[in-house]
Amino acid sequence: MSLKPLGNRVILKVKKEEEKVVGGIVLPETAKTNQNEGEIIAVGTGKYHGEILVPIPVQVGDKVIYKEYSSSSIDLDEEGTYVIMDADDILAIKE
Amino acid sequence: MSLKPLGNRVILKVKKEEEKVVGGIVLPETAKTNQNEGEIIAVGTGKYHGEILVPIPVQVGDKVIYKEYSSSSIDLDEEGTYVIMDADDILAIKE
Amino acid sequence: MSLKPLGNRVILKVKKEEEKVVGGIVLPETAKTNQNEGEIIAVGTGKYHGEILVPIPVQVGDKVIYKEYSSSSIDLDEEGTYVIMDADDILAIKE
Amino acid sequence: MSLKPLGNRVILKVKKEEEKVVGGIVLPETAKTNQNEGEIIAVGTGKYHGEILVPIPVQVGDKVIYKEYSSSSIDLDEEGTYVIMDADDILAIKE
Amino acid sequence: MSLKPLGNRVILKVKKEEEKVVGGIVLPETAKTNQNEGEIIAVGTGKYHGEILVPIPVQVGDKVIYKEYSSSSIDLDEEGTYVIMDADDILAIKE
Amino acid sequence: MSLKPLGNRVILKVKKEEEKVVGGIVLPETAKTNQNEGEIIAVGTGKYHGEILVPIPVQVGDKVIYKEYSSSSIDLDEEGTYVIMDADDILAIKE
Amino acid sequence: MSLKPLGNRVILKVKKEEEKVVGGIVLPETAKTNQNEGEIIAVGTGKYHGEILVPIPVQVGDKVIYKEYSSSSIDLDEEGTYVIMDADDILAIKE
Repeated sequence: MSLKPLGNRVILKVKKEEEKVVGGIVLPETAKTNQNEGEIIAVGTGKYHGEILVPIPVQVGDKVIYKEYSSSSIDLDEEGTYVIMDADDILAIKE
Repeated sequence: MSLKPLGNRVILKVKKEEEKVVGGIVLPETAKTNQNEGEIIAVGTGKYHGEILVPIPVQVGDKVIYKEYSSSSIDLDEEGTYVIMDADDILAIKE
Repeated sequence: MSLKPLGNRVILKVKKEEEKVVGGIVLPETAKTNQNEGEIIAVGTGKYHGEILVPIPVQVGDKVIYKEYSSSSIDLDEEGTYVIMDADDILAIKE
Repeated sequence: MSLKPLGNRVILKVKKEEEKVVGGIVLPETAKTNQNEGEIIAVGTGKYHGEILVPIPVQVGDKVIYKEYSSSSIDLDEEGTYVIMDADDILAIKE
Repeated sequence: MSLKPLGNRVILKVKKEEEKVVGGIVLPETAKTNQNEGEIIAVGTGKYHGEILVPIPVQVGDKVIYKEYSSSSIDLDEEGTYVIMDADDILAIKE
Repeated sequence: MSLKPLGNRVILKVKKEEEKVVGGIVLPETAKTNQNEGEIIAVGTGKYHGEILVPIPVQVGDKVIYKEYSSSSIDLDEEGTYVIMDADDILAIKE
Repeated sequence: MSLKPLGNRVILKVKKEEEKVVGGIVLPETAKTNQNEGEIIAVGTGKYHGEILVPIPVQVGDKVIYKEYSSSSIDLDEEGTYVIMDADDILAIKE
């Protein structure tokens, strides 16, 4: 069984704090990002701009950082391992 | 006699807590979703984006999870078994 | 003499509580809807989406349920038998 | 000398309470409308929807009912006999 | 030296209270308008509706009434004889 | 080195109070404008209306008056001699 | 590893206070800008105006000044050396 997010939503698997790897183009190796990290598990259809449906700019498997305390974020399980949120609250993709 | 929702509204039959089956693509079997589950009973015509009417992306019979305490949700009976709500508050389809 | 609602407004004759018949596609016969019921008496021209005038999706004679305590609802007589309201606050048509 | 309202505004001559005639398609003769009544004295050019100017849907001479305590209503004289208001606050035309 | 208002703004010369002449199509001669009166001194280019620039519907020399305590109104001199305001706060032209 | 404002912003050199020359088409010579005066130093690309980029209607060298206490105004130096602000808060050009 | 900002976001390397060089087309050499300075490290895809995606008007390597206390600014590391923010809060490019 699986969940297919609707509209501009994505489902994320949250990265546990202890596993967090420091990174980023420009970040020195001792820096730690304050933002939450996660992996994209499922992606909705996108968002309308005027009459055009613009796809969500992330894909399943992408590692992303997202807004801490995003108001659009909703836990899907009791441990908060899986969350569904608005794709606009994804800040950046780690490459 | 039946109810035909107007605009971007859907009618849901709420799943009782005791019948709730745990599921989701990525959720371990012991996880429980915090979100309400239901089955789509009736679907309105959709929502305008600019001048285009975009149909509601769920169909009668779909099992869905929806926002708990959605402000658009209105009980249709005293037991709260049937609710009418804005389709934008449907988070995802269970497949 | 008659009243012709302007824009996206409709005029409803409110159904008295004691006459209310329980119904709906999916509602068991013992359920009572929490929503107000009424009959459409007159219909305005509709609402603009962009530059397109979209007609109101109900017709004179339709039995409808509408939002209780809708902020757009205005009594037309002292008994509150007739009300004028925004068509967006009509939730569903009883068929 | 006369006043030509600008944009989506109309000028109304307010009907005095004692002259108010009960009416409306569906209203029993003993009912009294709670809404203010008036006669349209002058009409502006209308309102833009997107790039289209939509004319005001009432004409000079129309008898109308309008929102009581409309926030757009401005008295033009000390007795409050003449008011200028946004045409969107005209609820219905009496025919 | 002169001032050219930008956008949807106009410059008005405020009519002093004692010079105010009672008038208007429908106003009895004893009525006094509660609104401020003024003469248009300069006119901006107008306001965009979508992608169309709509000119301001008043001209230099027009006598107008305008919203008292308009939040867009800004005094240009210490006596408050000249004001610059949003053209949307001009209610009507005296003809 | 120079600053190029982005979007709908302009950079102004604020006119000192003691140098302020009274003026305006219609202002008597004894009047003082309550508004701040300045000279345009740099101009951004403009503002989108729908999908059209509309250039800022002032040019480098223009003498302008602007909204006092504009919420968009940001000092660029400690003396407040240079400010960057939204072009919509420029009220008028002195000609 | 690198970070690719989504949508209308940019990543900035904040300039430390002690290294700040005073500058600007019109600023006297003794003036100090009150605004934060930084260097653009990464740039998102841009922002929709209607149905058109407008690219962000800065490039990697640009020295910029940005709004102090911008509500869109989010620290990426504990020292606050790297921030991600909405490109609309970039005020100007230093050239």
